[in-house]
Amino acid sequence: MFSAETYAARRKTLLEHLAAAGATGIVFLPGNVHSARNYEDNTYPFRQDSTFLYYFGHNHAGLNGTLDVDSGESRLWGDDPSMEGIIWSGPLPGLAERAARCGCAPGGSNDSLVSLLHAAGRKGRTIHHLPPYRMDSVQWLAHCLATRVCAGPDALEQHACGAEAFDSLTRSMRQQASLPLIRAVVAQRSVKSIEEVAEIEKALGISYAMYTKAMELARPGLGERCIAAAMNATVALAGTHNSFTTICTIRGEVLHNHDYSHTMHQGDLLLIDSGAESDMGYASDITRTLPVGGLFSARQRDIYTLVLRAQQKAIDMAAPGVPFLHCHLAAAACIAEGLQSMGLLRGSVDDIVSCGAHALFFPHGLGHMLGLDVHDMEHLGEDHVGYDETVSRSTKFGLRGLRFARAPLPGFTLTVEPGCYFIPALMDKWKAEGICKDFINFDALEHFRDFGGIRIEDDILITDSGCRVLGRPIPKTPEGIEARMHARA
Amino acid sequence: MFSAETYAARRKTLLEHLAAAGATGIVFLPGNVHSARNYEDNTYPFRQDSTFLYYFGHNHAGLNGTLDVDSGESRLWGDDPSMEGIIWSGPLPGLAERAARCGCAPGGSNDSLVSLLHAAGRKGRTIHHLPPYRMDSVQWLAHCLATRVCAGPDALEQHACGAEAFDSLTRSMRQQASLPLIRAVVAQRSVKSIEEVAEIEKALGISYAMYTKAMELARPGLGERCIAAAMNATVALAGTHNSFTTICTIRGEVLHNHDYSHTMHQGDLLLIDSGAESDMGYASDITRTLPVGGLFSARQRDIYTLVLRAQQKAIDMAAPGVPFLHCHLAAAACIAEGLQSMGLLRGSVDDIVSCGAHALFFPHGLGHMLGLDVHDMEHLGEDHVGYDETVSRSTKFGLRGLRFARAPLPGFTLTVEPGCYFIPALMDKWKAEGICKDFINFDALEHFRDFGGIRIEDDILITDSGCRVLGRPIPKTPEGIEARMHARA
Repeated sequence: MFSAETYAARRKTLLEHLAAAGATGIVFLPGNVHSARNYEDNTYPFRQDSTFLYYFGHNHAGLNGTLDVDSGESRLWGDDPSMEGIIWSGPLPGLAERAARCGCAPGGSNDSLVSLLHAAGRKGRTIHHLPPYRMDSVQWLAHCLATRVCAGPDALEQHACGAEAFDSLTRSMRQQASLPLIRAVVAQRSVKSIEEVAEIEKALGISYAMYTKAMELARPGLGERCIAAAMNATVALAGTHNSFTTICTIRGEVLHNHDYSHTMHQGDLLLIDSGAESDMGYASDITRTLPVGGLFSARQRDIYTLVLRAQQKAIDMAAPGVPFLHCHLAAAACIAEGLQSMGLLRGSVDDIVSCGAHALFFPHGLGHMLGLDVHDMEHLGEDHVGYDETVSRSTKFGLRGLRFARAPLPGFTLTVEPGCYFIPALMDKWKAEGICKDFINFDALEHFRDFGGIRIEDDILITDSGCRVLGRPIPKTPEGIEARMHARA
Repeated sequence: MFSAETYAARRKTLLEHLAAAGATGIVFLPGNVHSARNYEDNTYPFRQDSTFLYYFGHNHAGLNGTLDVDSGESRLWGDDPSMEGIIWSGPLPGLAERAARCGCAPGGSNDSLVSLLHAAGRKGRTIHHLPPYRMDSVQWLAHCLATRVCAGPDALEQHACGAEAFDSLTRSMRQQASLPLIRAVVAQRSVKSIEEVAEIEKALGISYAMYTKAMELARPGLGERCIAAAMNATVALAGTHNSFTTICTIRGEVLHNHDYSHTMHQGDLLLIDSGAESDMGYASDITRTLPVGGLFSARQRDIYTLVLRAQQKAIDMAAPGVPFLHCHLAAAACIAEGLQSMGLLRGSVDDIVSCGAHALFFPHGLGHMLGLDVHDMEHLGEDHVGYDETVSRSTKFGLRGLRFARAPLPGFTLTVEPGCYFIPALMDKWKAEGICKDFINFDALEHFRDFGGIRIEDDILITDSGCRVLGRPIPKTPEGIEARMHARA
């Protein structure tokens, strides 16, 4: 955990933001509970809710936090460990000690929190909460807020509110999430403090070890899973968790490929997209694409180079005040230019990009915000995080998925991850439907049907004048990667 | 997957059991969906529902199965992959192909399943389902069954069914689970076929590699997490998942210790309780306790030997017709006898065990059923799995937690895992409250306050005449473990 003062200061800032927005009432920040795997007691590794972690710091299940906007008081809630709990899980700090560690007062048991919130609701006080992303949280919110979803004449007439109630409960728990709270949390969590950037760089230190390990190990004849297992073990040895499920595949054109069943062969490209968490839960997110045999073929090097050029262009442009959408489009233009010079696209680069023909090869966005979540605050609403009054979401294929489009501020941390993929199903569809047919040389494309995909990703911090690539540099140029793979034992 | 015939035969048997029990209607077996980690799209590794896996075999999210008890027809339901899905997750088999692979007919999309179930409900047909253990499943069941939890005069008077509805929905989805279905599934899944036993032994093959790796690596100065990471990487290299979160700790007296933060020192005991899944999802579950320095101290060897004797006694007794409770009590008597001869307990062994004084050291049950779940079918109700009309659950500390107490049948697979722990908080509580004080030498116990805990666990198959310990033997005697650790590089 950070110091108690850090959490107290963060909560103070949140309260100030809310007061400035004219909000009153109670902010309710529930922590996560354990998630069942194949039965209730066989749970997945615990992951705390990131906003709870940000304001209260405790990486432990079953805790809750409140901030009273009117009195300025923060409280931590949770049940003290029982003897049964001590036998199974060992001695753990009590609530008073936990509250002290994050600089607030202990509230009481979770039952007493429910009573407090019910009483506040009866008094008509506003209870601000965030949109839940787990069904357990929907249930807990509904319980705490004594939500009455079936009230009203329709419900009375139907005498029924089972499935409908349940669905609308989830929906209403999301819809009734507090906009002032969402805005205040997004504004605050978006700008990373020095100690937060240090955490991201710690996570990147683990990434460095993961990728140099992969470059040591990758070779023809091994399974993808050997590389994935070694990289994930590197995270476990560091005492933390992966920030998301590792992608490690010779079929890199499948964007979120979680299969590791292939054996790697000479000539394959291995695309690895992975991340670690720091002790405090901050994420790294890095992608590298390696030639399995240690050397890129001429064609692989051509495609790799154009992706690298696109990434470098975007990094060069990223700065406060520059909409990230512009960086995305500049990266897209690099990719279009490269593919045009290779004869796969035709026409002017501007026309190609404005038609969206490049999106056949680069169908995803340039990057996303990074922090306690690898897609930071995604569940608070991507539009709140990545868009603002000056940049609204496109509906075009290749642009509509852009998670972050607005102009960043100093202190924002983002990923920059252009890619170039040859997706047979998508190529066939575009060809059949004649999509952007004037700009695409479908015949030439046939030779790339088995090429796969290349993506290169780094994490940047927006500075006052531009940006800084975070972490110890992981080999990235074709020469750098080949040299590193050549140097292996 | 097993052959299509295996799944067809399993479903046929289930339908026969249900028909024999006089049941009619539709059996609805929902598969699992992905579980959110810190936002909706960052999910935990997918784990299929074990009963769905047993009858339909597909380890893929978003599928559902139905069996019509009246017509005898089985159907698989799910949505065919979209182009968006292909871009992100790659080409996947369609529903028709999936249905063929598990020997049934394709039903249709999940929406069409909802329509079918709603129509069946309107016709008054019974829809049999199992108790859900994930909140997502509660929601899906409620949606499919159009459950009307607020019907009735109370709900009408309250005009409200939010929090209450939500809670009671979860409760009612569990309560309205079909008893004939639970009984038929438990009866069928309890008796393992030859191919299922082979799967468990495959998982045990991974366990063998995990434990021999641990015996190679464990030594003073290393962190617990080095051992845990290497063992978990062994599972990943085999291409499967852990069957539960690995316990790997020098504080073995904390029964479900998931902390790996300690450094191991000379003189420490390392307790490792872990399991792997086979490709098909069957679990292994093994515990070994290792002397970190490679040699047990005299005192460690004494305690280790009495636990080993207890385990061997239970294995020798385990047989069809012998209540597992008797095996548990025999193991408890071994532990009591050993501790009495060491001067930690006093009085006759019979009196010690009937008072429950041994439970201070052995507070958990001897073992549990093992199969597709590491605690097989625990969510169907432990009392349905481990108890019957001849053996009912005790309320006594040390016995009430026994997950399996009934007499097993040939084909049952069980764990046998006695332990002996010195739990400071529990010792203090018993001493302060004078629990079993005539039988416990609390003064002598003080010298064991830091001892920790020892557990030894193997997996057995009940045969016609007794039982067989499954898997390639993993070193277990003090001499065997020391020899293996000595032989390391």
